[in-house]
Amino acid sequence: MNRMDFNKLKLNSDGLLPVVTQDYSSNEVLMVAYMNKEAFNKTIETKKVHYFSRSRQSLWLKGETSGHYQHLVSMALDCDNDTLLVKVKQEGAACHTGNYSCFYKNIDIDNKEVLESSELQQKKQNVFEIF
Amino acid sequence: MNRMDFNKLKLNSDGLLPVVTQDYSSNEVLMVAYMNKEAFNKTIETKKVHYFSRSRQSLWLKGETSGHYQHLVSMALDCDNDTLLVKVKQEGAACHTGNYSCFYKNIDIDNKEVLESSELQQKKQNVFEIF
Repeated sequence: MNRMDFNKLKLNSDGLLPVVTQDYSSNEVLMVAYMNKEAFNKTIETKKVHYFSRSRQSLWLKGETSGHYQHLVSMALDCDNDTLLVKVKQEGAACHTGNYSCFYKNIDIDNKEVLESSELQQKKQNVFEIF
Repeated sequence: MNRMDFNKLKLNSDGLLPVVTQDYSSNEVLMVAYMNKEAFNKTIETKKVHYFSRSRQSLWLKGETSGHYQHLVSMALDCDNDTLLVKVKQEGAACHTGNYSCFYKNIDIDNKEVLESSELQQKKQNVFEIF
């Protein structure tokens, strides 16, 4: 058992910690974003997930504008202490596009095509219509 | 619908694509690693997950030494085209420590302590013994 110390984590080339955010009940991966020490501490303190916005280069309380807050349920570090897994209760959608998860662009691995979720449904329907 | 083109993805400061690897049936997150174009193409070609090893700076067929291959089930890109989600059928353990997932270091978010899975079980048992 060790005291959690952000300074002992291995940060990436941008000095940030990659974070995988997962729905606590379905285990669906919602997004990948990044934290600095301030975002990490604010997340634990408020139980609402904060990231460091790479585009704005500032602290980012997820949901501050959209109301789509992520309520912290649990956190885990990986073996190398270089990535954080956060489980959350998601309000609304995690993605700014309105999709529940940011990972809505499925790759058809046989044909190397990118299909958005709605197109994938359409394709499946077409297959059913043919056969 | 778009043709998948690795060259159009946004790579990180190291010129690599972050990859979240997930168990296809339980949705447990197994690890986070990185791909370059070669690793991505080899993964699709062989249906066994390949990464780019940052420590060895070379192509890494996951399971080549341990036998713990990751059999590709599906792939999805995020809204920003800067992260890949891969679902796999995992042979053996994903983590070199023998843990099924690399994310076995749970953070006690109330006490800011890091507990490894076995310690967490122990702590839970102690709680049960006390109450």
